Amino acid sequence: MTEHYSTIVIGAGSGGMTVAIGMAGLGRKVALIEGHHVGGDCTNVGCVPSKTLIHLAKNFRPGMSADEVLQEVIRKRDALRDKETEEVEHLENLTFIRGMAKFTAPKTLSVTQDGTTRELTADNIVIATGARPRMIDIPGLPDEMVLTNESLFDLTNAPKHLVIVGAGVIALEMAFAFQKIGTKVTMFALDRRPLMTSIPEASEAIQAELDRRSITLYCGTVAKACDVSTHSLILKSGDEEITLTGVDKVLVAVGRVKNIDSLGLDQAGVKVDPRLGILVNSFGETNVKGVYAIGDVTPTSAFTHSANAQGRRVVQRIAFPFLPIAKKEPIFPNATFSDPEVAAVGLTQKELDETYHPQIIKRIRVDFKDHTDRGYTDGVENGFIIVDAVRFTGQILQATIVGARASEMISFFTLAISQKISLYKIYRLVYPYPTYSSGILKVADFFMRDTLPNLGKELAAYLKYRFARPK
Amino acid sequence: MTEHYSTIVIGAGSGGMTVAIGMAGLGRKVALIEGHHVGGDCTNVGCVPSKTLIHLAKNFRPGMSADEVLQEVIRKRDALRDKETEEVEHLENLTFIRGMAKFTAPKTLSVTQDGTTRELTADNIVIATGARPRMIDIPGLPDEMVLTNESLFDLTNAPKHLVIVGAGVIALEMAFAFQKIGTKVTMFALDRRPLMTSIPEASEAIQAELDRRSITLYCGTVAKACDVSTHSLILKSGDEEITLTGVDKVLVAVGRVKNIDSLGLDQAGVKVDPRLGILVNSFGETNVKGVYAIGDVTPTSAFTHSANAQGRRVVQRIAFPFLPIAKKEPIFPNATFSDPEVAAVGLTQKELDETYHPQIIKRIRVDFKDHTDRGYTDGVENGFIIVDAVRFTGQILQATIVGARASEMISFFTLAISQKISLYKIYRLVYPYPTYSSGILKVADFFMRDTLPNLGKELAAYLKYRFARPK
Repeated sequence: MTEHYSTIVIGAGSGGMTVAIGMAGLGRKVALIEGHHVGGDCTNVGCVPSKTLIHLAKNFRPGMSADEVLQEVIRKRDALRDKETEEVEHLENLTFIRGMAKFTAPKTLSVTQDGTTRELTADNIVIATGARPRMIDIPGLPDEMVLTNESLFDLTNAPKHLVIVGAGVIALEMAFAFQKIGTKVTMFALDRRPLMTSIPEASEAIQAELDRRSITLYCGTVAKACDVSTHSLILKSGDEEITLTGVDKVLVAVGRVKNIDSLGLDQAGVKVDPRLGILVNSFGETNVKGVYAIGDVTPTSAFTHSANAQGRRVVQRIAFPFLPIAKKEPIFPNATFSDPEVAAVGLTQKELDETYHPQIIKRIRVDFKDHTDRGYTDGVENGFIIVDAVRFTGQILQATIVGARASEMISFFTLAISQKISLYKIYRLVYPYPTYSSGILKVADFFMRDTLPNLGKELAAYLKYRFARPK
Repeated sequence: MTEHYSTIVIGAGSGGMTVAIGMAGLGRKVALIEGHHVGGDCTNVGCVPSKTLIHLAKNFRPGMSADEVLQEVIRKRDALRDKETEEVEHLENLTFIRGMAKFTAPKTLSVTQDGTTRELTADNIVIATGARPRMIDIPGLPDEMVLTNESLFDLTNAPKHLVIVGAGVIALEMAFAFQKIGTKVTMFALDRRPLMTSIPEASEAIQAELDRRSITLYCGTVAKACDVSTHSLILKSGDEEITLTGVDKVLVAVGRVKNIDSLGLDQAGVKVDPRLGILVNSFGETNVKGVYAIGDVTPTSAFTHSANAQGRRVVQRIAFPFLPIAKKEPIFPNATFSDPEVAAVGLTQKELDETYHPQIIKRIRVDFKDHTDRGYTDGVENGFIIVDAVRFTGQILQATIVGARASEMISFFTLAISQKISLYKIYRLVYPYPTYSSGILKVADFFMRDTLPNLGKELAAYLKYRFARPK
């Protein structure tokens, strides 16, 4: 017998839940299919346990037990998972199905669990299957020493010496957190600098803090082998060989692989790029009418908040097709909860380089230590606001903030960029004193001081370079 | 002999420094007159020492020395004061004069120091003399037990039992800070609730945190007498008498008095209200042409950031009279660095009540604990975002945030209110996950859920009440 639904959502992570709960709340008949835990990466192996750990690590003092911290992370994670599971299991209009879904036709899925298979059809199918950690092969490294974000938050004993492969968001967040609870942390990565997708100044600030905390990061480095008898890891950096000793765990955080293999997408005729994932337009629509994809499984989203945003757009698209909806996806800020935090919004360094002639951009840097009294009263050494703005017009192209409250401050710039609010207008605002945010005023102030006395020259340069090709 | 300047600034606090340094930087001949310390209240007896203390108190752990904390506050305060003094003493185009200034005519001042008097004239005179703590009389209370913010940051030994008179910004900030470094703190005030000018929900949150920290606050209470032999303070609340024992210091923080008495304002013909201070228009102009006033000495500013903003406007008005300048003053956010912080921007509760019919306003409340995952991972008990918006249109009238990062988050709303960005637009933004700021999205979400399904009804109510008189 075939069951029919208005909307089927595959994957009960952040994005999938947004769609499933949203559509069910609008009175549609929804099926939500999940092969693993409700809550997806975010609740189970991502944001929630990692931010709980980061919070507890921040307040960790000598004499406390690191193992108890890890156990508290598990407790809080499990409690939220149970609550979310309970919610989806009892939501009106929503049928929660445990099992693995596979397309058998464009609008038809078979779901297998415990050997039994049911067939489901729907007007709309939303794929939100996410991604999983990319693995690397280190000869001699036994499985029981390997961790990914999927197994990390089941640890109940803190490692003595944790080696982290990678220098991206997850790698850095965990490096700082574990260092604070007393674990020796060593990192290595193929990347030339930590947080490669950020502007170089952010990498420098993070590197300085890694140094300060005696977390060694070997850049441009690969693993050659593990000698399990001596608990040693042998790395290779150019011609140099580095031996790390006394290693008990290796956390692999070198990127993600999209979960598209077992979905039977060819049966549905859904277009896929093996690296980018399921190809969608800005509304989350695949090439097959009525089939959508959101979140990590798509090319443009790598965060819970972007998956949620895409989910909200899909709900609007399905439920209110007559209502206007912005053609472009909203801009997605990003945040790394390292210490200091790094948050950014707008064009990436790569996009800036590819889009603009360097002469059209003014990069303005305000350091919290030197340019804000809050930095002085808090004794901060590190951290800044860097804004790239179009010269003369003051249009903001990107903002990067490094500092204790960066993830909260960045939304100011999300709003400013989205609403095309220039630095001239930002100069007129008043910011509470003393705060890190008063650095925003300083950014506008530096831009004005650089621009107003040379208005003619700035206008000429703007006119000359505004359509110039990037270098 | 008379010295003539382009601009004379009386008072080297935040506002005065903004004008003096700004005008000197533009090449004008400036005199800056200060009778006490460079940096004014902010550097010497306000923001800088108080926020340094708050920061150190936050990181205070058992075993640390409270006295050393207070001494570190003094050290950092003195270092900044010395740096600022050095700066103004060596700034090009700026003559720094120590002494008390007094008007002898509309554009003429006499400055007395160490018995010698000089006469100064100027094209523009800017009064930035600030305010001082209001004192109260408690019979039997000896002077050596009394503190105000002006003497508090000279303490080198932490009091055992500090009684704070008042329940406003300074009183609360110091109550939380001293409680954290181990001082017993008791508060009393005539006010009915802490932070009277905030919305009642903010007072409730602060009261809950005072309770949690065993800081007793007696509202509607006055001091009757001090019995110095027993170190007791006798309070009166209605018919009830309360005796506080073992009191070693009493911090008076019950408001401020404008510094206008000794300026000879009658000689200049400058209009003054004994309670409101020097009367100015939105450009800081007094009734006397060429005489300006900014900061605490005026009716509308009580913060460093508002004094600075007024200073910037005066610089623009004097130096670039031909450039357009917004008629209205910018909106001033406020922030109280209690724990949790309280920050607000937009209309006050009183202004809302006086301006709008209650039916035209939707008050939306998002609690960090219940409505944000960051609240969950950080284990917060307290804190919220409350937004008052016009129903149907989603125009934001005020926002109040209570929480650990409120002072940084509020600038988002300063921008939104200034640029008239409605909750519909705020709903389209993406906020990093998991942050307290994602509560902003929740505010917009709650507004939409309340509005969209009842658009007709909401529109009708809007049309009915938009011009209705307040109740």
